Amino acid sequence: MSILSRREKHLGNGQKYFYKKPLHIVKGEDVWLIDDKGKRFLDVYNNVAHVGHANPRVIEAITKQSNALNTNTRYLHENIVKLAERLAVSTQNHLDVAYFCCSGSEANDLAAQIAKAHTKHQGCIVLSNAYHGNTTEIFQLSPEDCPKEHRKDWVKTIPGPRSFLENQSAYIQTLKEEAEDLIDSGYGVACFIADSIFSSDGIYEIPKGFLKSIYREIRSYGGVVIADEVQSGFGRLGEQMWGYQDDSVIPDILTMGKPMGNGHPVSALLTRREMIESLDKAYNGNSYFNTFGGNPVSAAAALSVLDILEEDNLIEQAGEVGSYLKKQLKKTLEENESVVEIRGKGLFLGIELDDPSKTAKAMEDMMHQGVLVGKTGPKNSVIKLRPPMTFKKEHADLLVDTINQCLRVIS
Amino acid sequence: MSILSRREKHLGNGQKYFYKKPLHIVKGEDVWLIDDKGKRFLDVYNNVAHVGHANPRVIEAITKQSNALNTNTRYLHENIVKLAERLAVSTQNHLDVAYFCCSGSEANDLAAQIAKAHTKHQGCIVLSNAYHGNTTEIFQLSPEDCPKEHRKDWVKTIPGPRSFLENQSAYIQTLKEEAEDLIDSGYGVACFIADSIFSSDGIYEIPKGFLKSIYREIRSYGGVVIADEVQSGFGRLGEQMWGYQDDSVIPDILTMGKPMGNGHPVSALLTRREMIESLDKAYNGNSYFNTFGGNPVSAAAALSVLDILEEDNLIEQAGEVGSYLKKQLKKTLEENESVVEIRGKGLFLGIELDDPSKTAKAMEDMMHQGVLVGKTGPKNSVIKLRPPMTFKKEHADLLVDTINQCLRVIS
Repeated sequence: MSILSRREKHLGNGQKYFYKKPLHIVKGEDVWLIDDKGKRFLDVYNNVAHVGHANPRVIEAITKQSNALNTNTRYLHENIVKLAERLAVSTQNHLDVAYFCCSGSEANDLAAQIAKAHTKHQGCIVLSNAYHGNTTEIFQLSPEDCPKEHRKDWVKTIPGPRSFLENQSAYIQTLKEEAEDLIDSGYGVACFIADSIFSSDGIYEIPKGFLKSIYREIRSYGGVVIADEVQSGFGRLGEQMWGYQDDSVIPDILTMGKPMGNGHPVSALLTRREMIESLDKAYNGNSYFNTFGGNPVSAAAALSVLDILEEDNLIEQAGEVGSYLKKQLKKTLEENESVVEIRGKGLFLGIELDDPSKTAKAMEDMMHQGVLVGKTGPKNSVIKLRPPMTFKKEHADLLVDTINQCLRVIS
Repeated sequence: MSILSRREKHLGNGQKYFYKKPLHIVKGEDVWLIDDKGKRFLDVYNNVAHVGHANPRVIEAITKQSNALNTNTRYLHENIVKLAERLAVSTQNHLDVAYFCCSGSEANDLAAQIAKAHTKHQGCIVLSNAYHGNTTEIFQLSPEDCPKEHRKDWVKTIPGPRSFLENQSAYIQTLKEEAEDLIDSGYGVACFIADSIFSSDGIYEIPKGFLKSIYREIRSYGGVVIADEVQSGFGRLGEQMWGYQDDSVIPDILTMGKPMGNGHPVSALLTRREMIESLDKAYNGNSYFNTFGGNPVSAAAALSVLDILEEDNLIEQAGEVGSYLKKQLKKTLEENESVVEIRGKGLFLGIELDDPSKTAKAMEDMMHQGVLVGKTGPKNSVIKLRPPMTFKKEHADLLVDTINQCLRVIS
């Protein structure tokens, strides 16, 4: 039986493939994925391999620590402490208490638990096409996937950044109305959560003052604010470590995941001591514990990713290559009538096309040309570019050429 | 600053320590943990290191696959398929569709989502001191930790196996009443979930017919049944791969976690195709996806654990060593007045003492003697013995000697 038939027999349908004829990838090298026939694909999609596929330094860190010790965090270990300290520093110690989990979903679920315990409120406000994860709770906060008829009435949505850009005061008015609805229904406002590049809402740089205005309103209703940095974090936007830092705000909780261990399942949440204490109190001291979270091997993987980002100056490089890529895309696709807008920052860019079917076709065609990209946005009309941080100008050139060729045929 | 003070400053309080003066463990070797002073401890607690701490075969599998490829499961890869097939076989293909996650909590959360989608009911029944995980949803199904005032009214509890042993018909009557309460409140019965060694309810072998009777009742109300094998699975009970198999039942969903990757964060859920299809339908096709779940490296770790269990005949060995240990404990502690009962099966045994403070003291004293054990049960009065599967008779002898010495002083 073919690998495809065997998989269809034994795996859940939710584990969908990226392409009509799924790729059978057997090897990864830096920004390249290689299939079972030896064909090489430039990977412009997989942000998990943050410092490059099969990065030898991360693998060495994992192997070395695995040979020494891998156990839970109810014993003392240097790695988890060092990691928590370095993450705290990355927020200028504004958020200096860490919890470690295995996935972004777990970190966001815990963030919601803390927000609800701290505020004693239940209501949550999210952007209208947001995705924050797959636990029962966080699926509710993921209108991209959660069918409207499933959405509980303690969840309210407000539009993505585009609406704010169009009319700021109307936008804030909408937010106020949703918040007041939550209060009138007795839920109160527990939290607002947003991903700092608004990926599934279509990929936008944070409009100036966007988070600042929302944070101010949410806090005026007694809510807390969560920055979901699972996709935008670890320097991907090319200037600072975390996306929210672009709007000079400080969230109450920061969550991180995907790229944190370069593929090793590790995630984390940063907050302030008082928030954690609210959770402990609400749970009578039986507070959150995660068996795998922050174990010495996961922490070693995460520490090595931080080391590599610094040693190889990858955040600055992501800024430079990202700016170059964006400029080249704008220049090359200027005349293309299918292209509505080119957006984003650093190594997280989006190309909105005028028709989702063109976006889907571009994604397939580019794969056949050896370049892997994704799609996103409320209508799935945005080509999503989110390569490993080791992406260089030569890769950007190849990407721009391929996009240009494919879109010329489609338009 | 000491590692302890640094940790207290930067980590959440829920990440509690096992001992009054926490151990600073730096190395693991098979059934041994070694602290920063070089002191060796016999590890009779950490089941995550299922095939032994720092097992070189698991590390080699992880390193080899990490050097080849680690990416998500939206591409085809042999490892995830092979792993799903082998897990299906371990249930005699009764449960032949797999979903992969990172933690037991995630697997149980997904199980609850599937149960609710499939039955279109909301109510859940759990044992009265159960622990199933830490997501918002699963914390509700964990009365061991979730304060009663936090428990939602769609959660009902029934007593642990001891009550069933005392009076079977009264027990089933209680179950019926709770189920009918859920129906009367409009929730209906979505699921029953239990761990197959009833760890936090005090560690019990499945009483003959216990699961069978409960499953029959739950199904008669249209509910499904979930076997949480996160602790009892992977042959720990020494006879079969999964704990529930001791009662000749077949659950609708099986979840697994902790020991699955010998410390690498990986977990899974097995069920039938129709159950998964109900979830897909309920979620309009936007079904569950987990970025890290089932990646080639996690799958390689899990496959190597399955290989080692088979090659080294560890399930049979766990049965033999476990029987020997239980017999020696019973013989040696027969006269000890503090010992109420010695229970459990395979390498998951419990010694119930007559006073929780004695249990706490025994745990501390044994650590000072170089043996690590845990405690559990509704009153935390049960010494919990749950060593790696590579535990041998010589280790059992050392353990029995140490317990005997410590309990003699305490009693």
